[in-house]
Amino acid sequence: MGAEKTILTMAKAAKRAGFILSQASSREKNSAIKKMAGSIKRNAGYILKENAKDRKAAEKNRIKPSLLDRLTLNKKRITAMAASLYEIAKLKDVIGEIKETIKRPNGLLIAKMSVPIGVIGIIYESRPNVTSDCAGLCLKSGNSVILKGGSEALNSNKAIFKCLQSAIKDTSIPRDAISLITSKRRSAVAELLRLDRYVDLIIPRGGEGLIREVARRSRIPVIKHYKGICHVYVDSDADLNMAHKIAINAKVERPGVCNAMETLLVHKDIAVRFLPVVAHDLKSKGVEIRGCAKARHILKWAKRADEKDWATEYLDLILSVKVVDDIDVAIKHITTYGSNHSDAIVTNNYDNAMKFLKRVDSACVYVNASTRFTDGYEFGMGAEIGISTDKLHARGPMALKELTTYKYVILGKGQIRR
Amino acid sequence: MGAEKTILTMAKAAKRAGFILSQASSREKNSAIKKMAGSIKRNAGYILKENAKDRKAAEKNRIKPSLLDRLTLNKKRITAMAASLYEIAKLKDVIGEIKETIKRPNGLLIAKMSVPIGVIGIIYESRPNVTSDCAGLCLKSGNSVILKGGSEALNSNKAIFKCLQSAIKDTSIPRDAISLITSKRRSAVAELLRLDRYVDLIIPRGGEGLIREVARRSRIPVIKHYKGICHVYVDSDADLNMAHKIAINAKVERPGVCNAMETLLVHKDIAVRFLPVVAHDLKSKGVEIRGCAKARHILKWAKRADEKDWATEYLDLILSVKVVDDIDVAIKHITTYGSNHSDAIVTNNYDNAMKFLKRVDSACVYVNASTRFTDGYEFGMGAEIGISTDKLHARGPMALKELTTYKYVILGKGQIRR
Repeated sequence: MGAEKTILTMAKAAKRAGFILSQASSREKNSAIKKMAGSIKRNAGYILKENAKDRKAAEKNRIKPSLLDRLTLNKKRITAMAASLYEIAKLKDVIGEIKETIKRPNGLLIAKMSVPIGVIGIIYESRPNVTSDCAGLCLKSGNSVILKGGSEALNSNKAIFKCLQSAIKDTSIPRDAISLITSKRRSAVAELLRLDRYVDLIIPRGGEGLIREVARRSRIPVIKHYKGICHVYVDSDADLNMAHKIAINAKVERPGVCNAMETLLVHKDIAVRFLPVVAHDLKSKGVEIRGCAKARHILKWAKRADEKDWATEYLDLILSVKVVDDIDVAIKHITTYGSNHSDAIVTNNYDNAMKFLKRVDSACVYVNASTRFTDGYEFGMGAEIGISTDKLHARGPMALKELTTYKYVILGKGQIRR
Repeated sequence: MGAEKTILTMAKAAKRAGFILSQASSREKNSAIKKMAGSIKRNAGYILKENAKDRKAAEKNRIKPSLLDRLTLNKKRITAMAASLYEIAKLKDVIGEIKETIKRPNGLLIAKMSVPIGVIGIIYESRPNVTSDCAGLCLKSGNSVILKGGSEALNSNKAIFKCLQSAIKDTSIPRDAISLITSKRRSAVAELLRLDRYVDLIIPRGGEGLIREVARRSRIPVIKHYKGICHVYVDSDADLNMAHKIAINAKVERPGVCNAMETLLVHKDIAVRFLPVVAHDLKSKGVEIRGCAKARHILKWAKRADEKDWATEYLDLILSVKVVDDIDVAIKHITTYGSNHSDAIVTNNYDNAMKFLKRVDSACVYVNASTRFTDGYEFGMGAEIGISTDKLHARGPMALKELTTYKYVILGKGQIRR
């Protein structure tokens, strides 16, 4: 009960702070964000000391090396955290913008004004830099934020949070605009997810299990992506050299992330020319290939892909390969097994490019480029608070603009409705 | 269990139909909508006969006269239903529009393409015209729709649905794009709300009880408004003649709707001049006035407003009146008791107008106009599928544009991420 009250109290305070923050000027917000960056830089030693505690516990608990890597901070990563905050301070402030003005026949002037959403809860795992990134993005967009990181990173997150708090202490930004839930109880998240009166949006970041659990329990709207089963379809009219480079990049450059390719679809007419060369290159880079029957007819050495493979996000140096009769079969495959994240066609055929763009129902649909570009920085947003494969509010990479909503402002001169 | 399977089957079919509908041309969609309008007009006699059955049952069950009125169809209302569909056919098709194009330094062209949301569930009460309006708006925006009306209007809804279905039978629009749940079981709604794999959005329309129940149970995102506790604040610098007209219009023109005023806030400096005149006029129009202590000091005859009044949506000829010390107290009152729907200030003071616009966190914030304009038609959207007081995706009146989402389309010439 004690912790429940604390989270409720925290959420109420965040709501109040949000009202004040929503009225803050760009200068006030940017100044606070720059102070946060400075505080992180100055206290790097302290943050590293606290991070060492988390790493020691993690090693004792024998967590996976990939998780340990995500948990680990070093001088360079702390500098990057501060740099990211300086970048956020430089971004254009989108709050208060007026758009889509309508003049009605009765003289009413109706427009949308861009405003903060209110209070945003971020539930995340492992990477402590999420703490400062999300605090910076939410503050810049005028939203209060309630952060709940994984217990494996608690000491690191607490240290970073302390730096952020001490930085905004002497600014006009209310301290309750940034909160960190430090309870290790699993129920703490459940408590937060019930507070739909005070919290306006939940963004979960982490493994599919965490995200499904949050989505299932939440009474608050959740924007999320479960996973990224991304496809590259190489059309019969493709520039095979280009297709080769895109396939390698999409699979190998960073296989553990959600915008990496998991399935390569190849048109039957170019499969014999294309597959042996690209598969050999992939194999030389350590990629295990699992093919359909037709693909294995060409690549005798490849493993067999079964039904489960098409629906699996490997997040690893594994690739499933399917030879398809035409673009329609490729699109049908993506519709059946994809995760609505990022899918690409490589083609020089205009009609097929347009068909793919229109029919593939994913957050990001590419023609002749690598799926790896699905990222807030790469899209020119300056930062990223997450990626959405949902249909409502925001799709694809989300940053400042996606942390805003609008209200209608209506300017009259005494109009009444008749 | 039989019905559960039917609703699941219906949702799956709606999803498939949605893919086809999302690719339909404007001409195909408009032609189908016009045929739907024609079918409603031609079958007016049949619809009226079925509606009579509902009315007879309603009278037997002694439902409230206001509900009976909303349930009742007549020639004029059926003509209006058809006219509304013709209007929807005339609206601009927003699907496929390209916006917010970004050219990246690496040459990538990134843009948002406007696309349908997918499958939309509408859960509503009483008014049978919602059946045809929502079917028309969803079809025009390329979305499949699953309709679930109240059991009190089941015969009417079935009749209208039959007309719509027979109209699209000979078009290229798949019949499963429009479905009606005819089960009278309460659990039918619960079943629908679990199908987040197939249904993308739920819009409930009706009383607060229905909407809260839907929001509580749904695994699918819900856009909604619970109620409209709308305020008009008359500032010390107001044109009192204008304020008078706006107050009368906002309260009296149609008191039973969500954008009608429920509380009048009056600055203390003009209360003695303003309140007696406007209150007398309101009283003469049958409005019961419930005032705070200061208001009752001026209006001796007024009833006393208690704490509960400030938080009540009367939907009736009742008005609560509060005299406030200044605009800050007015904004604080709206923040505390309002429903984030529609609130107005009447003032000639520029600073106060701007302060009210910025600080009142409602879907629609008015300066010098009646709150009664919060409506899709009045905003120039041509139609309305509902009003949102939520923060995400859409706020205020929702129509075609709010029934769309976007996908990112990324056009490259072989770019890979380095």
